[in-house]
Amino acid sequence: MAIEGRQDKGGSNRIRLGMVGGGEGAFIGAVHRLAARMDDQYDFVAGALSATPARAKRSAKALGLSSDRAYTDFEVMAAREAARADGIEAVAIVTPNHMHAPIARAFLDAGIHVICDKPLTVTLKEALDIKKRARKHRRILAVTYNYTGYPMVRHARQMVQEGALGKLRVVQVEYPQDWLTERLEATGQKQAAWRSDPRQSGAGGAIGDIGTHAYDLATFVSGLQLEALAADLSSFVPGRKLDDNANILLRFRGGARGMLWASQVSPGNENNLKLRVYGEKGGLEWHQEHPNQLRWSPFGEPTRIISRGTGAANAAAARLTRVPPGHPEGYLEGFANIYSEVAAAIRAARQRRRADPAVTFPTVDDGARGVAFIEAAVKSSRRNAAWVKLAKT
Amino acid sequence: MAIEGRQDKGGSNRIRLGMVGGGEGAFIGAVHRLAARMDDQYDFVAGALSATPARAKRSAKALGLSSDRAYTDFEVMAAREAARADGIEAVAIVTPNHMHAPIARAFLDAGIHVICDKPLTVTLKEALDIKKRARKHRRILAVTYNYTGYPMVRHARQMVQEGALGKLRVVQVEYPQDWLTERLEATGQKQAAWRSDPRQSGAGGAIGDIGTHAYDLATFVSGLQLEALAADLSSFVPGRKLDDNANILLRFRGGARGMLWASQVSPGNENNLKLRVYGEKGGLEWHQEHPNQLRWSPFGEPTRIISRGTGAANAAAARLTRVPPGHPEGYLEGFANIYSEVAAAIRAARQRRRADPAVTFPTVDDGARGVAFIEAAVKSSRRNAAWVKLAKT
Amino acid sequence: MAIEGRQDKGGSNRIRLGMVGGGEGAFIGAVHRLAARMDDQYDFVAGALSATPARAKRSAKALGLSSDRAYTDFEVMAAREAARADGIEAVAIVTPNHMHAPIARAFLDAGIHVICDKPLTVTLKEALDIKKRARKHRRILAVTYNYTGYPMVRHARQMVQEGALGKLRVVQVEYPQDWLTERLEATGQKQAAWRSDPRQSGAGGAIGDIGTHAYDLATFVSGLQLEALAADLSSFVPGRKLDDNANILLRFRGGARGMLWASQVSPGNENNLKLRVYGEKGGLEWHQEHPNQLRWSPFGEPTRIISRGTGAANAAAARLTRVPPGHPEGYLEGFANIYSEVAAAIRAARQRRRADPAVTFPTVDDGARGVAFIEAAVKSSRRNAAWVKLAKT
Amino acid sequence: MAIEGRQDKGGSNRIRLGMVGGGEGAFIGAVHRLAARMDDQYDFVAGALSATPARAKRSAKALGLSSDRAYTDFEVMAAREAARADGIEAVAIVTPNHMHAPIARAFLDAGIHVICDKPLTVTLKEALDIKKRARKHRRILAVTYNYTGYPMVRHARQMVQEGALGKLRVVQVEYPQDWLTERLEATGQKQAAWRSDPRQSGAGGAIGDIGTHAYDLATFVSGLQLEALAADLSSFVPGRKLDDNANILLRFRGGARGMLWASQVSPGNENNLKLRVYGEKGGLEWHQEHPNQLRWSPFGEPTRIISRGTGAANAAAARLTRVPPGHPEGYLEGFANIYSEVAAAIRAARQRRRADPAVTFPTVDDGARGVAFIEAAVKSSRRNAAWVKLAKT
Repeated sequence: MAIEGRQDKGGSNRIRLGMVGGGEGAFIGAVHRLAARMDDQYDFVAGALSATPARAKRSAKALGLSSDRAYTDFEVMAAREAARADGIEAVAIVTPNHMHAPIARAFLDAGIHVICDKPLTVTLKEALDIKKRARKHRRILAVTYNYTGYPMVRHARQMVQEGALGKLRVVQVEYPQDWLTERLEATGQKQAAWRSDPRQSGAGGAIGDIGTHAYDLATFVSGLQLEALAADLSSFVPGRKLDDNANILLRFRGGARGMLWASQVSPGNENNLKLRVYGEKGGLEWHQEHPNQLRWSPFGEPTRIISRGTGAANAAAARLTRVPPGHPEGYLEGFANIYSEVAAAIRAARQRRRADPAVTFPTVDDGARGVAFIEAAVKSSRRNAAWVKLAKT
Repeated sequence: MAIEGRQDKGGSNRIRLGMVGGGEGAFIGAVHRLAARMDDQYDFVAGALSATPARAKRSAKALGLSSDRAYTDFEVMAAREAARADGIEAVAIVTPNHMHAPIARAFLDAGIHVICDKPLTVTLKEALDIKKRARKHRRILAVTYNYTGYPMVRHARQMVQEGALGKLRVVQVEYPQDWLTERLEATGQKQAAWRSDPRQSGAGGAIGDIGTHAYDLATFVSGLQLEALAADLSSFVPGRKLDDNANILLRFRGGARGMLWASQVSPGNENNLKLRVYGEKGGLEWHQEHPNQLRWSPFGEPTRIISRGTGAANAAAARLTRVPPGHPEGYLEGFANIYSEVAAAIRAARQRRRADPAVTFPTVDDGARGVAFIEAAVKSSRRNAAWVKLAKT
Repeated sequence: MAIEGRQDKGGSNRIRLGMVGGGEGAFIGAVHRLAARMDDQYDFVAGALSATPARAKRSAKALGLSSDRAYTDFEVMAAREAARADGIEAVAIVTPNHMHAPIARAFLDAGIHVICDKPLTVTLKEALDIKKRARKHRRILAVTYNYTGYPMVRHARQMVQEGALGKLRVVQVEYPQDWLTERLEATGQKQAAWRSDPRQSGAGGAIGDIGTHAYDLATFVSGLQLEALAADLSSFVPGRKLDDNANILLRFRGGARGMLWASQVSPGNENNLKLRVYGEKGGLEWHQEHPNQLRWSPFGEPTRIISRGTGAANAAAARLTRVPPGHPEGYLEGFANIYSEVAAAIRAARQRRRADPAVTFPTVDDGARGVAFIEAAVKSSRRNAAWVKLAKT
Repeated sequence: MAIEGRQDKGGSNRIRLGMVGGGEGAFIGAVHRLAARMDDQYDFVAGALSATPARAKRSAKALGLSSDRAYTDFEVMAAREAARADGIEAVAIVTPNHMHAPIARAFLDAGIHVICDKPLTVTLKEALDIKKRARKHRRILAVTYNYTGYPMVRHARQMVQEGALGKLRVVQVEYPQDWLTERLEATGQKQAAWRSDPRQSGAGGAIGDIGTHAYDLATFVSGLQLEALAADLSSFVPGRKLDDNANILLRFRGGARGMLWASQVSPGNENNLKLRVYGEKGGLEWHQEHPNQLRWSPFGEPTRIISRGTGAANAAAARLTRVPPGHPEGYLEGFANIYSEVAAAIRAARQRRRADPAVTFPTVDDGARGVAFIEAAVKSSRRNAAWVKLAKT
């Protein structure tokens, strides 16, 4: 027990937060609320938690919202909250993908910061529109590519930036799961149903749900820009409308190459996101299911296990660390780090100052790139895995 | 992403919580606050965060307490809070060990539930006094043996209870750390200083700080009662007043045998608590640093990796699970489970009903047993590792 | 210590073995000799260990060959050994790749069985010629795709054959190393020098040296036939003439898809061959660096760790097992299994009977397919990773 | 593939080896023969493989011994082999424990070197007698504490000798198995039967079979001398005559402390020998089931994974390395290293010179100490785990 906590810097003067989506039966909404609560930086005060009025009200009551701030219509919510003196400063969007764009639009236009689940939108066109509006209104739009919030992911990124690996050559990222091995969407399971429905999920199945996370993580850590990809998407489960397995070749600007594998039909894999980055001088390996350690292999020397919370963890990791080494932090802590980074940015915005340059979270630019990635992968696959360049964002 | 969250059942009608200790420079206080916040079951509203008035006020302000509830004296706090209509219902005690008893006494006597860090007290006599008072006032006294809050620890316990392992034979528990390999207490590091000072820490060093966790975990999972122990305690670091390594033989009622190792001078070990339990029909292994998996080896069959959040996890684990498999939960989630279990008990107490029998947390009985364990270990070691029976609690 | 060994079934009436290549400074020749010796099935009695006469003689003497059987010319060796009553029955070819074809030809034509290191030849044309000759002369030609000799690889293959995984969907195989991260071939290091020289190694670098192992392992276990591939080969190290990293998309007959990654420039990877196979009913994972365990994940159930030597290991694995579980077998034991399987086939051939159908080793067919794989990968890469069908073999 | 093999230094002028025990149905005899064969240093030419004449002959024939050297009586064998010009130079003793002493005596008295399985004898008195005779006849007596033959065990030992860990404080060694969880000896299983029979096995069960390995490994690596122990031995399986679980406290000269756990009733453990050594400056961890890696944790720095065959492996490890990193070596290679070290000593003895000082293997001194350890453990356990000093050897 050797380090001093940063567990609750918040406390006073919290940021007022609303939510769209995330009512009964939802998964990710509750994760967002917990993430917002963890460092005590937000007060959750308003929500349009469901498009079904009765469910929206029940959910709001259960979560302790006052009844006048339990909305059923996100546009009404945006308008009324913008009009209140104590209105929300930020909204979390945790609906199925196809609703992200209209909701983000409504709140940005109302002058409210947005924290949006990934992918940002279902088309690149929408993403670019959102990007334009965020700029125009000078509002923060964060996308919860939450895996970038893990301290050892930050450590890895800083190592690459500092040149510890030398020029990068190879980037391997994979994100296998198994929960869609059978046709779960046909059973009425809500998470599976919307994710495998192109009208709600967009053109990407596994590629949109998890492939985009893998892409974002790889570029976040490596700092590389993806130039082109060749994607071979499959829908293995009979009757499934979207891809459930994606095999992709990657070419980065500057010459690095890589592969990306995303799968939801690979039994034995829960949420098995893994990133490996290799350069002229060394290699890094990070594994989401055991996120507190990073393997660092300087060429010609033994592999080091760099552990979160130790003296060997760099500043980028230390900033986001709550408890000492050996006291594992997990998914929720990583997710909460995104919320706390956004909180720092919102506090700076309140005061019309720039945030500390160390503050880092996935922005609307990352969100738009993620959508461009999905579109390129789908396009390449339709062309029999021909190389497709990433659209400019 | 397949299961529905239980991330925030709380929300409305939260429990009013106070804290003694845990101001600036403290470690565990912030952990308790975060744990209390995680499932949104508590409002943190009052505190005597430091015995130093200026520090107490600064800390209270930083954490958003109103100034009239920022105390510097825990007895004043107990009295005033008991007198308020909106006074605290529970207090968290997160001071050095020697203060646990007087503080717990004050709040119990004021009719306030207590959540106390471990060990409960520095002497068994004090522990038994606290136990008597908790009974007399019919107040909850929970001890944060937080490792019992991990879902897969609960899974293991239920398996043992159901007889999956058959009659138990061997229990091996170890808790090595390395942070006191050098004489950190001489550098002014606060956590090290009080832990190695017998006046603040009691008669146990490593045995009191972490050995008691190991003991509690082993008995929690195995359901066994420790009958006698033979302890060989060492103080390896020159100038250290308390033990920093403990090697202990264990004999349980019913014939099972075991060993317990606690160390704070074993480089390469961060917080490496590990439990192994073996019976006639199979063996279990659980490792705190990767807490989401449990190894289950039915004799004669391959080892199974049972993973939190999956269908293979039993009811005791599922109750305390927030996110799906592969999304690692960690130390803070396990700690928060203790707080949420206590919250369920406090809500039941509010309504003068019994809590759901599934609600489980370390009680004053466990706390007293933990102190008896420390005393027995110290006594045995002073007698050259002779067998010492555990005192009745 | 619970199982009875099969460590030395051999002993009497050993098979007379010669070797071409493998003199001083060589690596793989010594591995072949040790593999031949392990189960006491062979007598090593003749060799053309080097093309340099003095070195050939020194090596032969050091290894205990009689001087009249220490050759410097493989054609002379083939002729003389064929003429002796006690001449060799089999020859091991352990030279650089470009010499495999002429040597194999000479010995097959002399009526001597051949055990050839991989890849079989440097061109498919040569491979098909060798195949024709082996058939014509009714001689065994085995290729040391040694990773197929590991017991748990055999276990995995039998599970797939028995349908435990259901219809296969996804095959992921990777073989990263790091020893060519720098330009080792420029330092005079012998192993690196010939492997990176197209005249000795053929058109493939990493793809020929290790990619072909990965391909063979994947098809051996899955039983699938590779239909087409799309390969993106790179030569990252400046001045290197052959590929040192290969990223490949795979399409199998019947609809399964996969990826293959081979790299010799990925720091932290020693010989990190890993295979994962996923079907409708479950997934398998095997890792060469810890080869005694196989992970088996039946969909919806916990992952099992199936361990070599236990009752859970199937007949295909048990046949090739020497020591009990927990007593790790390694690379040399796996390699020796190929030699012992070939010995069983040679003993059957001596008696003009069929070998036990359980006897399994990589044949000239596998060797030819491996060369076709290399050619397809090189061709695809030259066409910018276009899909290339595998040539018929 | 970067290092040059030492796989077969032998070849010419091999050492003539005989064996007593190890016929049909035996386990360890085949391991010894394979170990002797691996580096091509020995010719196995004579044996008294069973006390049952028919079995002895069948076994000898199957293993290719000539009929005049297939003995049924070890005393006859010792006499006749000593009389032959081409008689054996060394004998391997692989019988049940109680026969070790008389056989060793017979061959030492006949001037033949002895390689004896562990434990050396069933009483310390016998062990000291053997030690005296080995000295008197100036013959080598090696005991196959084979785990000391692993390269990374040698690496660890050298690190300790060089002072990398500083003064040692804590030594933890454990050796759990599960194969005697049920009463296997009652089923006629041969390995279990003699091991659980005090007349054949001696006074120790698990403590003699595997505890002595753990003790030897711990002292080999640490260089420490065990001063006293307190042992709590159990026989958990009803009807079992000897201990099947041993929990032991250790005190070393110079102040280090430790624990030793040996168990044969712990389901899920195959041959799970693990050693951890901690000093003032760092800690080491080695695990027999994955023996090619050693974890080295310099205090305050990240843990390093030191891998066999790499440049980071020290001279003591490199001497005993056959194949490059990532090509796992296992139990048989480690065992073979003992045989090859003994071979070097025998070759030196042939020439009446001292062996290279680097040559290291467990001697008659180690064997005697191992027996003293067993006796001390049994004595302590009978005295209710009182401290017992190790007898002088």
